[in-house]
Amino acid sequence: MCRWLAYSGTPLILEEVLYRPKHSLIDQSLHARMGVETTNGDGFGIGWYATHARTPAVFHDVGPAWSNRNLQEIAGHVRAPLFFAHVRASTGTAVQQTNCHPFRHDRWMWMHNGAIAGFHLLRRSLLLGVDPALFSSIEGTTDSEAMFYLALTFGLDEDPPGAVARMVGFVERVADQHGVPAPMQMTIAVADGERTWVFRYASEGTPRSLYFSRRVDDLRALHPDTDFLKDVSDETRLVVSEPLGDLPGAWNEVPANTYGVVEPGRDLLDEFRPQLP
Amino acid sequence: MCRWLAYSGTPLILEEVLYRPKHSLIDQSLHARMGVETTNGDGFGIGWYATHARTPAVFHDVGPAWSNRNLQEIAGHVRAPLFFAHVRASTGTAVQQTNCHPFRHDRWMWMHNGAIAGFHLLRRSLLLGVDPALFSSIEGTTDSEAMFYLALTFGLDEDPPGAVARMVGFVERVADQHGVPAPMQMTIAVADGERTWVFRYASEGTPRSLYFSRRVDDLRALHPDTDFLKDVSDETRLVVSEPLGDLPGAWNEVPANTYGVVEPGRDLLDEFRPQLP
Amino acid sequence: MCRWLAYSGTPLILEEVLYRPKHSLIDQSLHARMGVETTNGDGFGIGWYATHARTPAVFHDVGPAWSNRNLQEIAGHVRAPLFFAHVRASTGTAVQQTNCHPFRHDRWMWMHNGAIAGFHLLRRSLLLGVDPALFSSIEGTTDSEAMFYLALTFGLDEDPPGAVARMVGFVERVADQHGVPAPMQMTIAVADGERTWVFRYASEGTPRSLYFSRRVDDLRALHPDTDFLKDVSDETRLVVSEPLGDLPGAWNEVPANTYGVVEPGRDLLDEFRPQLP
Amino acid sequence: MCRWLAYSGTPLILEEVLYRPKHSLIDQSLHARMGVETTNGDGFGIGWYATHARTPAVFHDVGPAWSNRNLQEIAGHVRAPLFFAHVRASTGTAVQQTNCHPFRHDRWMWMHNGAIAGFHLLRRSLLLGVDPALFSSIEGTTDSEAMFYLALTFGLDEDPPGAVARMVGFVERVADQHGVPAPMQMTIAVADGERTWVFRYASEGTPRSLYFSRRVDDLRALHPDTDFLKDVSDETRLVVSEPLGDLPGAWNEVPANTYGVVEPGRDLLDEFRPQLP
Repeated sequence: MCRWLAYSGTPLILEEVLYRPKHSLIDQSLHARMGVETTNGDGFGIGWYATHARTPAVFHDVGPAWSNRNLQEIAGHVRAPLFFAHVRASTGTAVQQTNCHPFRHDRWMWMHNGAIAGFHLLRRSLLLGVDPALFSSIEGTTDSEAMFYLALTFGLDEDPPGAVARMVGFVERVADQHGVPAPMQMTIAVADGERTWVFRYASEGTPRSLYFSRRVDDLRALHPDTDFLKDVSDETRLVVSEPLGDLPGAWNEVPANTYGVVEPGRDLLDEFRPQLP
Repeated sequence: MCRWLAYSGTPLILEEVLYRPKHSLIDQSLHARMGVETTNGDGFGIGWYATHARTPAVFHDVGPAWSNRNLQEIAGHVRAPLFFAHVRASTGTAVQQTNCHPFRHDRWMWMHNGAIAGFHLLRRSLLLGVDPALFSSIEGTTDSEAMFYLALTFGLDEDPPGAVARMVGFVERVADQHGVPAPMQMTIAVADGERTWVFRYASEGTPRSLYFSRRVDDLRALHPDTDFLKDVSDETRLVVSEPLGDLPGAWNEVPANTYGVVEPGRDLLDEFRPQLP
Repeated sequence: MCRWLAYSGTPLILEEVLYRPKHSLIDQSLHARMGVETTNGDGFGIGWYATHARTPAVFHDVGPAWSNRNLQEIAGHVRAPLFFAHVRASTGTAVQQTNCHPFRHDRWMWMHNGAIAGFHLLRRSLLLGVDPALFSSIEGTTDSEAMFYLALTFGLDEDPPGAVARMVGFVERVADQHGVPAPMQMTIAVADGERTWVFRYASEGTPRSLYFSRRVDDLRALHPDTDFLKDVSDETRLVVSEPLGDLPGAWNEVPANTYGVVEPGRDLLDEFRPQLP
Repeated sequence: MCRWLAYSGTPLILEEVLYRPKHSLIDQSLHARMGVETTNGDGFGIGWYATHARTPAVFHDVGPAWSNRNLQEIAGHVRAPLFFAHVRASTGTAVQQTNCHPFRHDRWMWMHNGAIAGFHLLRRSLLLGVDPALFSSIEGTTDSEAMFYLALTFGLDEDPPGAVARMVGFVERVADQHGVPAPMQMTIAVADGERTWVFRYASEGTPRSLYFSRRVDDLRALHPDTDFLKDVSDETRLVVSEPLGDLPGAWNEVPANTYGVVEPGRDLLDEFRPQLP
């Protein structure tokens, strides 16, 4: 289990979102409330798009986020219009930087909460599904990174929702071939620098929690005294594994088996259904 | 806040005590029950006396103990008759190896749970109390290490209980001079390779929790089926911040403001009272 | 021995200076030519002033710079008008983040190459010279950080060259009292966000190497095809432990026992002479 | 490029071999003489067989060996009859613990110096050759670990020289299929707790350097005053990437395209020839 946060909107110093709110993501690294585990201390990562580079920067480290000084330094001095942050609770794979989210390939960033059941059994077959030209770019051993490279294989560049649907369909078929039922538990965020797509899905039962912030103009009306809200555009949006604690009324649950697109203009929520690749 | 464990008795593979018991110290690094904080993920350390060396080995690392593979390797392959283990929750000082317990000087090992109130204010005056010949051996920035070097200054080599009493008396006097009331909260373990001394004290109120295991022959009578107990001598003893969970009836609380000596032959518990150096 | 670099001028992506040149600082971490040691693999650090923050960001890590991916990420995505970078070869003190340069206090950054002879003997007396109000901000164990806090004690805020002169005078007096001759070997860079001061001094003999870049308009005339030079202002300046290798004719040696000021308008070089505080 | 050392014989405190000799392996981590690179600072590892465990202990870390305090502690306090040590210079793959040698599987330890040319291109096809039941035990991304799992796949348990020959044959065939000529450069050590096998081979040209120590009784005659030699049995043997510096006349080169077996009784050197699996 992990906790993550995806921000997009008015360029903001990262710490405004990562550290300042009550029950911030950094606080969730030590005291998560809605996850399977309360502690997410097995590494962390952030990724952001700088205005002068096409590919995002990623910063990963293996200790807990709550005590990491470099994270605090970067978060306090970097400003970005689109950034991801992720705190990890390992489900068994090694605690190492190449297993930390967000993963990056070219202009894409990807992060995940959840797990593929029986991944140990399925790993080889899943990796065989990855485009051979992409194979050697895989550096870690997580299910999350394998899912990313499968989505890249199945067309992330052209059609993110379709590519993720085909990735899930592929994983479910491989699992079925190995006798593993209901393999997928996931919330995912993926961005290309302009837009962010988020997914909440489980092969069976309730998926991991996922929330998005209400429109900033609604929040401003609810919380006229909150400084942070004065400075950001109406289109600024947060998607989070569990609500940050400052703003009652600020959060809507992403419905189960749904995906959303966060982009300039109208956002979108739609049904998510796995497809066979 | 931290959690620690001191073992002495029949030489044992460390993992028997560190990993195997329910609610082991490694488990306490993630889920402590009796501490101020439930998570002790800000570094850890072990120290042990090998039969062929006069000074103990120490192994420190800055991540959480629960995911550290090197710790698991060492604990699974090193056997020792006297060892310490400590999981740290920083009270503000940097997470770095030189702030990890147990500290070592010559043949001595030292570890601590608790804090000196207002240490930030008192640090300079406390360090001035350290023997100038020892001063440059201080490598970290914790109150715990300062306490160790003060105890060495005040005669740890000849009279451990007296040296610790004078260290506490000195800290309380310096605190009083700076207007800091009731500065000391501590459980301490210190060993010289033959004996272990443990201390439980607070300047005011209840000190941090501390427990010692009952005599092994009593435990054997209570738990005739427990393998571990068959292999160790009657004099084997554990002192712990909080009980390991396997053995109901196995633990006695060290009374407040008391110290104990664990050594071959009869152990001792006596009143602990600070002295002026 | 260490290697360092101080940049000020037109805001630049850090990697342009840190990675791109032949014999860059990152290359010097593995293959220094002019230092006492060829390898500077005992930690590193960078520090930069962001436009939206008064105090600089610092990023430190304990492994070698040459293989650090986070450094590469940050250097590739952060743009700044004034930044420091430092690769460390420990002269004995622990390899830990709190011993990595640049050190920061409030708006000040400080980095150093060289050593105080006999620092082990002098450390206590030197630390006693630090303003008690600053004492608890010292987090590491290096001579370099002690020098920084002494300079802060002796008036860095009002008069940087005078404060450094008094720091050196104090160190030389303390060394003399302990029978340590000719204690100081140093090149230093210190910045407040607007200006950078650099120092090259030895109590005796030749100080460690130090070079500054010639005026950019001169360099442009020498190297009309170098892209990098087209984009930066005439006032852009680099000060380095040893020349980067791309630009023959680009570097002047800072004379021994001299200090310089890099600031908008005319730069300055003047004699450096220790003073008694 | 890397440097390694394999010891077997009379149980010895590791530091006697790792730190004490002139031009020791720890010294070679900073100043190798015979390798492609002089610095081997991209992680290191040791592995040893303890008398009370069937599988060896391994200790890996990502910084340079020369400054690692935990390595010094362990080497100073652990005694073993058979141990490996390895200092790494990455040829591009991530610096992380799961890429550090020696690798372990069950009772086997494996370490390597050299590289598979074009590994980036061949990686997927090589991993497809690994027994699916072993596939998920692969944790890192090095060619060295892939070679180990291929050797396990091709019968390491029953016939180490044959399994390594088939591994090399397989790699050469896959390389040929991808148009990569002369792919293999290797020295390898592999042990099962009783015996150690060493290999020196290149598909073309001169393989990386490899030396073994002469018989201890011969060395004693040459160096009657060397303490170390008085304490170890005649059968004690070191195999090293480059000679330790203390003992002139102590080292014989392993001939190119040869393997050796170090075991109680007579050692063996024989021709090494790749086979098709």
